[in-house]
Amino acid sequence: MDDRFEKGMSILKITNPDNIENIFEKFEDIAPDLGRFVVEFPYSELYTRDGVDLKTRELCTVASLTTLGAIPELKSHVEGALNVGCTPKEIVEIILQMSAYIGFPRTIEAMSAAKDIFKQKDLLPVTD
Amino acid sequence: MDDRFEKGMSILKITNPDNIENIFEKFEDIAPDLGRFVVEFPYSELYTRDGVDLKTRELCTVASLTTLGAIPELKSHVEGALNVGCTPKEIVEIILQMSAYIGFPRTIEAMSAAKDIFKQKDLLPVTD
Amino acid sequence: MDDRFEKGMSILKITNPDNIENIFEKFEDIAPDLGRFVVEFPYSELYTRDGVDLKTRELCTVASLTTLGAIPELKSHVEGALNVGCTPKEIVEIILQMSAYIGFPRTIEAMSAAKDIFKQKDLLPVTD
Amino acid sequence: MDDRFEKGMSILKITNPDNIENIFEKFEDIAPDLGRFVVEFPYSELYTRDGVDLKTRELCTVASLTTLGAIPELKSHVEGALNVGCTPKEIVEIILQMSAYIGFPRTIEAMSAAKDIFKQKDLLPVTD
Amino acid sequence: MDDRFEKGMSILKITNPDNIENIFEKFEDIAPDLGRFVVEFPYSELYTRDGVDLKTRELCTVASLTTLGAIPELKSHVEGALNVGCTPKEIVEIILQMSAYIGFPRTIEAMSAAKDIFKQKDLLPVTD
Amino acid sequence: MDDRFEKGMSILKITNPDNIENIFEKFEDIAPDLGRFVVEFPYSELYTRDGVDLKTRELCTVASLTTLGAIPELKSHVEGALNVGCTPKEIVEIILQMSAYIGFPRTIEAMSAAKDIFKQKDLLPVTD
Repeated sequence: MDDRFEKGMSILKITNPDNIENIFEKFEDIAPDLGRFVVEFPYSELYTRDGVDLKTRELCTVASLTTLGAIPELKSHVEGALNVGCTPKEIVEIILQMSAYIGFPRTIEAMSAAKDIFKQKDLLPVTD
Repeated sequence: MDDRFEKGMSILKITNPDNIENIFEKFEDIAPDLGRFVVEFPYSELYTRDGVDLKTRELCTVASLTTLGAIPELKSHVEGALNVGCTPKEIVEIILQMSAYIGFPRTIEAMSAAKDIFKQKDLLPVTD
Repeated sequence: MDDRFEKGMSILKITNPDNIENIFEKFEDIAPDLGRFVVEFPYSELYTRDGVDLKTRELCTVASLTTLGAIPELKSHVEGALNVGCTPKEIVEIILQMSAYIGFPRTIEAMSAAKDIFKQKDLLPVTD
Repeated sequence: MDDRFEKGMSILKITNPDNIENIFEKFEDIAPDLGRFVVEFPYSELYTRDGVDLKTRELCTVASLTTLGAIPELKSHVEGALNVGCTPKEIVEIILQMSAYIGFPRTIEAMSAAKDIFKQKDLLPVTD
Repeated sequence: MDDRFEKGMSILKITNPDNIENIFEKFEDIAPDLGRFVVEFPYSELYTRDGVDLKTRELCTVASLTTLGAIPELKSHVEGALNVGCTPKEIVEIILQMSAYIGFPRTIEAMSAAKDIFKQKDLLPVTD
Repeated sequence: MDDRFEKGMSILKITNPDNIENIFEKFEDIAPDLGRFVVEFPYSELYTRDGVDLKTRELCTVASLTTLGAIPELKSHVEGALNVGCTPKEIVEIILQMSAYIGFPRTIEAMSAAKDIFKQKDLLPVTD
C-alpha cells in the first residue's frame, strides 16, 4: 500500500467507506485490483483536488450517474452525497434537473433509486 | 407569451441569452415550438427552483452533458457556467472528474469543447 | 391545477391513466413536481399536437424506449400503445425493426418486456 | 446475388437508393460485405414484413436514430421517410416528441439534421 | 431451414447452444423470427468469417457488451467465451481494461455479471 | 515523474506515441493532469498486465470504442492496433462484428473512421 492508496482511502472514509469495502469483498476472488483502481484513480487523483468542494463534486457525480443510468453506483453516490453534507432536497433537485438533458425515463429511474436510499435512512418525506 | 415563458426568459437572460436566440432563429421555419419548450420547461420549471444555486446547477449540467457526449450543448453550458460565475478551473475540475464515470474518450472530447470556449473568451491558460 | 395540467391529463386518461397515478403516488414524498412535469410537458405539449395520430406516436415512443433500453418506461408505453389501438403485432414489428439500429441485445431485452405485458393482458400468442 | 439481396434492393429502390449506393461505394475497398448486410438484413428481413406500413416504419426509425444520436444515418432516414410519403411536418413532430424521452440536447441535434435535409430539398418552411 | 440457418447453428453449437434454445423458446409465441435472425445474421454471417479466431471474437464481444451495459447478453457471452477456450483470467482482463473507456460504474456491473457465471461454473477464484 | 508514469510511457511508445503527445500538448494550458492520468491509469495499470497480449487488447479497445461511438479515440486506437501488429483485415472484422451488438449506424461510422486511417497510411484496399 503506497501513498496513493492511502490518500484515496482517506477520502473514502468520509464519502463512502461501506461501498469500497463491498467492492473489495465482492471482487477479491475475481479482480482484486478493481477496488484498488477505484481508490487510487478517482478517489486519490480526482476527489482530492482543489478548486471544487466535496459537496459540489458529489452532486455532479449524481448528475453524471443519473445521465448514465448507472443505478447501483447512483445509490452509492446518493449515500456519498449525504455523507459529505448534501441535503436530500439538493439531491432531488439535481436529479429533477436532469430531465431536461436525458428525458423522463432515466430521471424517473434515478429518482426511484434516490427514494430507496432516503427510505433506508428514514429521510422521507423530503422537505425544503 | 404567458408567465411561464417570461419566467424562463428571465433566467436565460442571466445564463445564456445568445444560445436561446440561436435556437429560436435556427428552428423558426421548422419547429418554432422547440425554443419555447426549452424556455418553458428547463428554464422556467427547473432553473428557477429553490434549494440549489445557479452555479451548482450549471456545473451539474456540465457533468451531465459531458457524460452524454452532447458537445454543442456542452459548449453552450460552459458559457452558461461562466455567465453565472463559475471559474474556468471549476469547469475543468468537473469535466476531469467525469473520467471516473465515463472513461477517457468522452472526457477528452468534453475538455476539447471547453477549451474551444475558453479560447474564444481569452481565458487560457486556466489557473487555480 | 391550470389548463396545461388538465390538457395533459385528458390524454393520459386515454393512453395510460394507471401509470401517471403510479408516478404521482411514488414520488409524492420526494419529488411531487415530477409527475406534474410529465403531465404538463410531454402529455400536454407533445401528445396533443396535430399532424401525427396517437397510434403512430406511441409506436415511435416504443421505438425510442427500445433504443434507450429504458425497460420500465417501455412496459408502460407498450400498455399505452395497446390502449390507443395498436395491435400486439404492430408493437412486436417495431421492436424487431430496432435490431438494425441498436443490435440484438437491447432488442431481446425489449421483446422480453413486451412479452411480460402481453402475458399480463392475456394477449399471447401474438398473431398476424 | 440471391433472392434475399434482390428482395432488400427492391425496398431500397423505394426508400433510399442513393444511400445504399454510397455505402457500397464507400466501403468497397475495406468492407464490401457491410453494404450487403444492410441490404440482406434490415431491408430484406425487416422492412418487407407485414403488419406495419413503410411510412410508420420510417417514422419509428427516425425516432430510434434521434434517440441514438446517429446523425448521418438520421439524415439518410429523413430522406427515406420523405421518399415513402411522410410529410416534413410528420418528421418534425416525431423528432419533437423525442424530447420527452431523451431530453433537449439530442432533440436539437436531430432537428438540425432534419433541417439540413429539408433545406437541400427546398422543403422549408415546414407547414401544417 | 436453409443453408444460412444451418451454418449459424453450427457455430452456435460450439459457442452457446443453450442460449439460442432459450431465445427460440422465449419468443416462440411473440416473435419467432427473432431467434432466426440471431442465427442467420451474427452467427452465420459474422462468426463464421475468416481472419479472426473465435476466442478473439468472443473477447471483443465481451468488450462490446460491457461497454453497452447489456448484462443478460454479457452473461451469455461470458459463457460463450469460456466455451471457445478463453480462460476466466482473459475475460476478467478485458472487462478490467474497459474501465478506461467507460469508467467504473459499468465496469463494476460487468465484473459482477462475470462473477455470477464463474460462480455457477465453479471457476472461482480466478487465478493467473 | 514516478515509476507509474514511466511504465505507462513505455507502453505508449509502442502503441501510440503521437497520440499521447497530442493530448499533452492540447491540454497543457487547461488540464495538464489529463494526459498524466491517461499514462498512469490505462497505460500503466491496464495495458501492462499479464494474461492478454497487446494485439488482443487493442482489438477489444476497437470493439469498445466502436460500441461507444467515440470516433476520435477510435481512430487513435486503429493506429494503436496497427502499431502492435494487428492487420487491417482484423480491425475490419472486429468493427463488422459489432453490427450485431450495436446495429448498423454506429458500425458504419466506425468503418468510415477506420477507412480514414487506412487511407492516410496507404493501406487500402484491405485484403485477406
